[in-house]
Amino acid sequence: MIIGSGNVAVNLAHAFRKAGKNILCVYSRDLAKARCLAMAVDAQHTDKLEMLPDKADLFLIAVTDSAIAGVVDRLKVSEGIVAHTSGSVNLVVLNKLKAGQGVFYPLMHLSSEKIIGFKNVPLCIEANNESNLLALQQLACAISEKVFCITSDERKIIHLAAVFACNFSNLNYIISEEILKKQGLQFELLHPLIAESANKIQTASPATIMTGPAVREDYDVIAEHLKMLENVPGYKKIYQILTETIIQKKKNHEL
Amino acid sequence: MIIGSGNVAVNLAHAFRKAGKNILCVYSRDLAKARCLAMAVDAQHTDKLEMLPDKADLFLIAVTDSAIAGVVDRLKVSEGIVAHTSGSVNLVVLNKLKAGQGVFYPLMHLSSEKIIGFKNVPLCIEANNESNLLALQQLACAISEKVFCITSDERKIIHLAAVFACNFSNLNYIISEEILKKQGLQFELLHPLIAESANKIQTASPATIMTGPAVREDYDVIAEHLKMLENVPGYKKIYQILTETIIQKKKNHEL
Repeated sequence: MIIGSGNVAVNLAHAFRKAGKNILCVYSRDLAKARCLAMAVDAQHTDKLEMLPDKADLFLIAVTDSAIAGVVDRLKVSEGIVAHTSGSVNLVVLNKLKAGQGVFYPLMHLSSEKIIGFKNVPLCIEANNESNLLALQQLACAISEKVFCITSDERKIIHLAAVFACNFSNLNYIISEEILKKQGLQFELLHPLIAESANKIQTASPATIMTGPAVREDYDVIAEHLKMLENVPGYKKIYQILTETIIQKKKNHEL
Repeated sequence: MIIGSGNVAVNLAHAFRKAGKNILCVYSRDLAKARCLAMAVDAQHTDKLEMLPDKADLFLIAVTDSAIAGVVDRLKVSEGIVAHTSGSVNLVVLNKLKAGQGVFYPLMHLSSEKIIGFKNVPLCIEANNESNLLALQQLACAISEKVFCITSDERKIIHLAAVFACNFSNLNYIISEEILKKQGLQFELLHPLIAESANKIQTASPATIMTGPAVREDYDVIAEHLKMLENVPGYKKIYQILTETIIQKKKNHEL
């Protein structure tokens, strides 16, 4: 059973269908979206939560974080496991339910416009008891080779780490693109280098592959860069604090 | 002619040889390294700059930045183009020479332990006149499909942008790995997400694909993350300044 019709719902529904799992029904408050997803995965559809069949192996709540509690309040489930797909909501949001409770969190950017294969997508699962965890694990292993048992507290840590690794890295790409564009240079120049940097850390710890003026303690180049950023105080401050952090790590023999 | 036997020298020598170019001689102050590279690319070798033949299409100075001026002082070249391979040294370092002068800068991490193909490596070239630029361009196009004419000032901008895009992104990977490891979680969990983030910006501007609590202005999650970083003031400060920058960009409609 799929509750939701957004990016996560669409991708997980397709992944389960492709793995030969039978999807009984898709719920969405947007009937057209429910119908569209249901047709793609050979399921029934509804825009009324009360109309959902009350028995299934898995009820997947793939809605926005703030809507999960509301869905739980209205859900009538007598058998099976109810699992939400959020990275930051605690398992306890489900503890009013009589059915099994779990989390089924795919650690990946998902978009309903691009259905992806889940073979290499890490799935973080959690459940309210061992047998439900085992059941979720079996379902997860049917679509992914990377299944991890992760507690709600650990999921929070992973989310924080992902903000640094992905959102903050992306901000650095944005700043980089801006610096180039302002001088009429193309960001495409850096595409291969960025791809290579992200590729390297797939097999080596990022602490072992740092390059650049900070780790070399090349203070002449650093001074020149700070001068070039004189008119962009926000970026100068970011350059300073990140450079100081790298130099400090070098001095601590962490790099 | 290849002057140097480090990461850049080894990779460029192999790339030119593979493209059918004849390498006359490899110089290195380390005779064993000169011999090793020379054997691999069917060239003569020497550890005496004075022994280098004085005529060739190209004399490639692929030594560390601080050693370039010293090499130039001792170089006797009557014909051809002398080009250094540095990202941050100005073309004028070569202007004592009677021969043609240029820059041949590969915008990529290179390692002598891993010889790479140059087809997709951006080559930034510069020369002291049009005909030398044309000659360098032809040589560059023999090994790469991405050849860019870049002035010394532009090269500095590119270097600054690369510090943000690569070195600072790598610092964020390091912080992310630390946060996970401290809680006994594996950095491998984030490998697919990091690969996907770097992959996305190969076809889309990073400003169009930002995700996470800052761009959503999800102040509850941000407050929770700051609380989790309470005991690591350095990382808390980085989280704050990068988050504020993202929120400001959102408010300015840049994201």
